[in-house]
Amino acid sequence: MGPLFTLLTDFGAGSGYPAQVKAVLLAAHADARLVDVSHEVPAYDVLAGALLLEACVPWFPREAIHLAVVDPGVGTARRGLCVVDPEGRRLVGPDNGLFTPFLGDGARAFELAPGDALPRPRSATFHGRDLFAPAAALLAAGRGPERLGPPVADPVRLAWPSAQRCPDCLRGETLAADHFGNLVTSIREEDLGGAAVAHAQVGEERVRFVRTFGEAAPGELVAYVGSGGRVEVAIREGSAAARLGIRGVPVRLALA
Amino acid sequence: MGPLFTLLTDFGAGSGYPAQVKAVLLAAHADARLVDVSHEVPAYDVLAGALLLEACVPWFPREAIHLAVVDPGVGTARRGLCVVDPEGRRLVGPDNGLFTPFLGDGARAFELAPGDALPRPRSATFHGRDLFAPAAALLAAGRGPERLGPPVADPVRLAWPSAQRCPDCLRGETLAADHFGNLVTSIREEDLGGAAVAHAQVGEERVRFVRTFGEAAPGELVAYVGSGGRVEVAIREGSAAARLGIRGVPVRLALA
Amino acid sequence: MGPLFTLLTDFGAGSGYPAQVKAVLLAAHADARLVDVSHEVPAYDVLAGALLLEACVPWFPREAIHLAVVDPGVGTARRGLCVVDPEGRRLVGPDNGLFTPFLGDGARAFELAPGDALPRPRSATFHGRDLFAPAAALLAAGRGPERLGPPVADPVRLAWPSAQRCPDCLRGETLAADHFGNLVTSIREEDLGGAAVAHAQVGEERVRFVRTFGEAAPGELVAYVGSGGRVEVAIREGSAAARLGIRGVPVRLALA
Repeated sequence: MGPLFTLLTDFGAGSGYPAQVKAVLLAAHADARLVDVSHEVPAYDVLAGALLLEACVPWFPREAIHLAVVDPGVGTARRGLCVVDPEGRRLVGPDNGLFTPFLGDGARAFELAPGDALPRPRSATFHGRDLFAPAAALLAAGRGPERLGPPVADPVRLAWPSAQRCPDCLRGETLAADHFGNLVTSIREEDLGGAAVAHAQVGEERVRFVRTFGEAAPGELVAYVGSGGRVEVAIREGSAAARLGIRGVPVRLALA
Repeated sequence: MGPLFTLLTDFGAGSGYPAQVKAVLLAAHADARLVDVSHEVPAYDVLAGALLLEACVPWFPREAIHLAVVDPGVGTARRGLCVVDPEGRRLVGPDNGLFTPFLGDGARAFELAPGDALPRPRSATFHGRDLFAPAAALLAAGRGPERLGPPVADPVRLAWPSAQRCPDCLRGETLAADHFGNLVTSIREEDLGGAAVAHAQVGEERVRFVRTFGEAAPGELVAYVGSGGRVEVAIREGSAAARLGIRGVPVRLALA
Repeated sequence: MGPLFTLLTDFGAGSGYPAQVKAVLLAAHADARLVDVSHEVPAYDVLAGALLLEACVPWFPREAIHLAVVDPGVGTARRGLCVVDPEGRRLVGPDNGLFTPFLGDGARAFELAPGDALPRPRSATFHGRDLFAPAAALLAAGRGPERLGPPVADPVRLAWPSAQRCPDCLRGETLAADHFGNLVTSIREEDLGGAAVAHAQVGEERVRFVRTFGEAAPGELVAYVGSGGRVEVAIREGSAAARLGIRGVPVRLALA
């Protein structure tokens, strides 16, 4: 049974680019197991990609190698990176903040430095195929991440939006939308610390904080703890993104 | 060689949700074979999902386990279900009519009841990952469907649109569109009983009933028996859905 | 480890049609490895499909079998084809020019002729599932392409747009867009013959010819040698396709 790779990009599933990345992985590991996380990250949206990695990566077996490319800086001097998070998960991609959720205390990062192991990328515009996939293939072959290049002490981190605590509330904002138009926010379940929520305010609207969609009426805007561990805002059988926009809508939870 | 799972959802392939479902399956069966049927079922459209399952499931090897989630009722009290159809095919998902084509005489259904085998779902909004995938993984590990929960005598069935026979005709309607804008109807090949069709009427238009696209001129609206065993309506190199709408267009076949 | 198949179609990934093709392959080879190249080729756009095959197929291991279907003529008398290119790569699909990039000197082509090996297609409208997939499965089982049907001396070739040489320039045109709106052109890296490019003209605009996106300012239209070996035109962090259209925009490279 071959190594397990996941792929997350903003390439578009139909573009042929993910297939080229997979071809490189299959050429190195004919028995590779390949799982697409998403190829529909909004183009160049590093934050949306990072949130998706945060939601998905923890569900995969620990030995999976996660290749992620949302890379407005391809062709510039931005570094390529292999991150090993505190749990030992390995992620490969650009050093532009995409791996912020995995760069907590105890994480290590290494630059992907073309040398004896890694070839110089054939193309200046397709590092997913020409740099990151070869690096991921080397990791899968047993090469330690510290042998891909020098340690990086200051990997790029996004200014990660977080929740603000006020006396009887938590304040945050919407960050990204899923396919249904549900919005994830900067408030995480753990920010609640077990506190009960009396109600929520989303933009100008006061809405109910519910445990499940089942408590909402079709068409009702509600807030709840989503399946990814973040507070979400959604309209049952409708699109909160279409009504409110995607990013930067203030969300306030009144604690009971 | 690992178990074969197919996945059909309205999650959107790029949403990260299908990947989380796959991660759960891979955690249970590292050698799982995973095939996407579709993640682009129109949101909450149970009938469209059921039609797609009807067209696709029979082509897979009998031992495949089919995980399907089009689930406007997630978070409500609607049951989770394992269906075993008369051919022995196993399907797992919500009890909301999605499995109607497989609920004919001789089918069995079992409720997915969290207990010793199935964990209580971690999330109230993502049963695909937290209930259906674990149930499918148990089936693949050899557990009998009757050991997932109690039998269900009355699984939800869609009022499945069917063809009406008149003296010299069959009447039906359009039900769903594919990517090309071809429309499948409620008239099945077997409803014809071998009768020849003189011509078809689609909405207000009289159109030719052909054997293949090759008999149609580019731009011509025609009817024919489609590859899924249902009468379809299409415009050669054009979109019947764009011209007529998707659902509820009357279709009448004049028998020769 | 099973045979490796790639799939390229204009079916739409969510249509259920690619899944039916995969089901046929899995029924023949339970351990098949399946990689999607694209199912989002613009409907009926044979040239776009051919360009995508050109960019992707060479990255896969030589033994992969490439199943490709962009087929406005399904249901007509157009032949089905197995192409063996000069490198020994095998491609299966319609004889309509889709395989033009692989039909150079030394290529062989064979008609897919239903007979003792290949069944007569069950459906007149879905040759991907009913003719091409069974043919690909036979190849994977070791059958020689010459045993699928008679040799074809005159496979259909697209009038493949190429670059024109003028004294101090190369002239071409845009052919297709990717997901980012980057445009590939009819000028190939090899047409440059190592010559340096002073600047490019795209439609009415004079633009810089760069080595990487990194040299361009966000929003700047530039030309460069793309990752697929063709000159491309792109707007950094924007869409050249949205600004210029997709096909037929004149591109002129002034040689230094």
